Amino acid sequence: MPASVEIVTIGDELLLGATVDTNAVFIATALSEVGVQVVRRATVGDTEEAIADAVQQALERTGAVITTGGLGPTADDLTRPVLAKLFGRELHEDASIVAALQELWRTRGRGGVLPPSNLQQALVPDGAEILVNRQGTAPGLKLTDAQGRWVAMFPGVPRELRAMVVEHLVPWLGAQAGDRVLRSRYVRTTGIAESALADKLGAMKRRVESLPLAYLPGWDGVDLRVTAADMSASEASAKLDAAVEQLRQAAGTHAYAVDRVSMPETVLAMARAHGDTIAVAESCTGGLLGTRLTDVPGSSDVVHGGVIAYANHVKEQELGVSSDDIATHGAVSEPVAVQMARGVRGLTGATIGVGITGVAGPDGGTPEKPVGTVWIAVDVRGEVRAIRSVFIGDRPEIRHRATQSALDMIRRALLVLAS
Amino acid sequence: MPASVEIVTIGDELLLGATVDTNAVFIATALSEVGVQVVRRATVGDTEEAIADAVQQALERTGAVITTGGLGPTADDLTRPVLAKLFGRELHEDASIVAALQELWRTRGRGGVLPPSNLQQALVPDGAEILVNRQGTAPGLKLTDAQGRWVAMFPGVPRELRAMVVEHLVPWLGAQAGDRVLRSRYVRTTGIAESALADKLGAMKRRVESLPLAYLPGWDGVDLRVTAADMSASEASAKLDAAVEQLRQAAGTHAYAVDRVSMPETVLAMARAHGDTIAVAESCTGGLLGTRLTDVPGSSDVVHGGVIAYANHVKEQELGVSSDDIATHGAVSEPVAVQMARGVRGLTGATIGVGITGVAGPDGGTPEKPVGTVWIAVDVRGEVRAIRSVFIGDRPEIRHRATQSALDMIRRALLVLAS
Repeated sequence: MPASVEIVTIGDELLLGATVDTNAVFIATALSEVGVQVVRRATVGDTEEAIADAVQQALERTGAVITTGGLGPTADDLTRPVLAKLFGRELHEDASIVAALQELWRTRGRGGVLPPSNLQQALVPDGAEILVNRQGTAPGLKLTDAQGRWVAMFPGVPRELRAMVVEHLVPWLGAQAGDRVLRSRYVRTTGIAESALADKLGAMKRRVESLPLAYLPGWDGVDLRVTAADMSASEASAKLDAAVEQLRQAAGTHAYAVDRVSMPETVLAMARAHGDTIAVAESCTGGLLGTRLTDVPGSSDVVHGGVIAYANHVKEQELGVSSDDIATHGAVSEPVAVQMARGVRGLTGATIGVGITGVAGPDGGTPEKPVGTVWIAVDVRGEVRAIRSVFIGDRPEIRHRATQSALDMIRRALLVLAS
Repeated sequence: MPASVEIVTIGDELLLGATVDTNAVFIATALSEVGVQVVRRATVGDTEEAIADAVQQALERTGAVITTGGLGPTADDLTRPVLAKLFGRELHEDASIVAALQELWRTRGRGGVLPPSNLQQALVPDGAEILVNRQGTAPGLKLTDAQGRWVAMFPGVPRELRAMVVEHLVPWLGAQAGDRVLRSRYVRTTGIAESALADKLGAMKRRVESLPLAYLPGWDGVDLRVTAADMSASEASAKLDAAVEQLRQAAGTHAYAVDRVSMPETVLAMARAHGDTIAVAESCTGGLLGTRLTDVPGSSDVVHGGVIAYANHVKEQELGVSSDDIATHGAVSEPVAVQMARGVRGLTGATIGVGITGVAGPDGGTPEKPVGTVWIAVDVRGEVRAIRSVFIGDRPEIRHRATQSALDMIRRALLVLAS
């Protein structure tokens, strides 16, 4: 079996629905790379009883527990005292942490003087290991009992937690895990439903290379995940590589990337390889396609930019869309999408122009053009293709799916050019 | 005490780190509105033992359990059989579900014929209540034991789960909860650090109107949450309203909204009230400011659109930015931000123009302009203000913080106009 840990996330805000817990995802991803499996996760509020109970149970089951949150300077930050009590330790003030906090206040423009409330963050259970936090004020702590069972406490601030997991936890657990790994690979598909994809996979529908296959549908499409558990790194690599190759073959042109590569990254790499540049003209997506493309570091050699043509007069004046066509066919129509794509290509000098115009909802739908109706046009070096889609979901989902579909149209056009 | 439930989310993908669990947030938010508190959450993989164990423990503790996931048509969907076994029930095929599935395949362009694998979704534990799913194929199920303890099973697809929680769970739990409520309200602040905000609040630092206060720092700023538990709805409303008013006063102009109102919603409402319109010129944010503004339904009366000026030649040609200024001061500079704001205002005829240019990283930083350096200019009816900031975080965080800061500059300019 691969090494196992449990996560206990602590904080009322996670139960009240104010905050999405992205830390757990980060930890799981980081640990799976070194063959350590998160086997269970619990989320509890800021109460002594719930924290102690959840950590105690996880210690009894798995003996290896990561907590996040509850290390801040306020009265509802209970992780430190509760876990000290659970391990039967007293708290003492650590001089090195006090000094580090004072230094932080002195140098980082926080006002010069350490507030008394932050001294709580210098309290350390006897015998605990201190895990340095280079991004913030609360250090992490690790407690180990006589049976070797341990709990590692991290702050809940994502930026701090991420740096500390990479610095402290991954190297340490990686060294313990030895050569048995848990590893997943992904084949990412779009433009095809889960059941149709399963049919395409035929005999590989549930297992490929004897590894279990999972279907993960989302706004980007359906990701296929294949997982190798409890084998050596070399065996896992060989099986996963073979499985990914077979899945890519079976999914055909619906497969746009493997592993964590995004659609924008795929499209940017293909455009770069062809010497193409991209400009966007966005109405209903309001800049989301530009945002997704420029989320990728180093996208500036491919992305020129474009026009957010939310108002019709911007479509007409900036992109040269015909006001007659808007009057006759409506702003959500094939001629308008085509003229937006052509217009932004001409305006910026990019080799690829994209036009998106649609009804993102919740209002504005009609029987002929219900909410979700989107016209997308892609002009690749003067050759224009336009597609009408009706995307499901609410406003954010419709907008995301529209940008994914636009990127897929660029990808398919570049695939044809390459062949 | 308010009524309590626990959530058990089921799915390997949640443990492997492939998926962020947004369902739990939605459920917690929806239930808190009817005074029901999520007191604990567990996440387990697709194994019989883990599912049975987590649900069993939650039933023993709280007696009221919501599960999400594991109701799909594939072999790793175990929720249905595992919970039937836990409750000592047999599974039978439900004719009404079979008929509904056949109808769905016949009418929704899924290929006409129901695949055999989907028949699994028609299996129902004896005595279970069927919860209709109008958005997808897997119905929900509710099992109740002789002691009145219950588990309600929902699919993991967010769109389906959300509709079903609103249709089935909220009315039913709301009716049970009676007149004791759990309710939170929020005062949202930006441009001020958590500790400085606490200092400003003085005596209200931890409690206001005897209600506990929590600090929730994030990319948008610091949200203040005040919570009323276990009191009547009218008492809670009165205390919360008074607390929110006091917090707003104390936070001053840093408070930009209450409850779930976003910064874009605040700015759009203010602009609408003043008869102002907005256009954006974005370099390092690549369309994110436009995206955030147009995320809001009905934003089209205020937002004209704008220019994604990622490449310098787009800044020059579309926005009239001086190439000399780019050469002399660099693209990330005050004159360039100012000319972008002015340029996009002139181009679109909007009354407010925004220019954003910065170093989002991870590369491109210099000693004078480190990663995170962003110049933002706002031109409100010809009056221009520009600010240089150095935002912390990685590329997505820097970009988000830059748009939040730009929106806050518009808000503050409109506040001054209004006074």
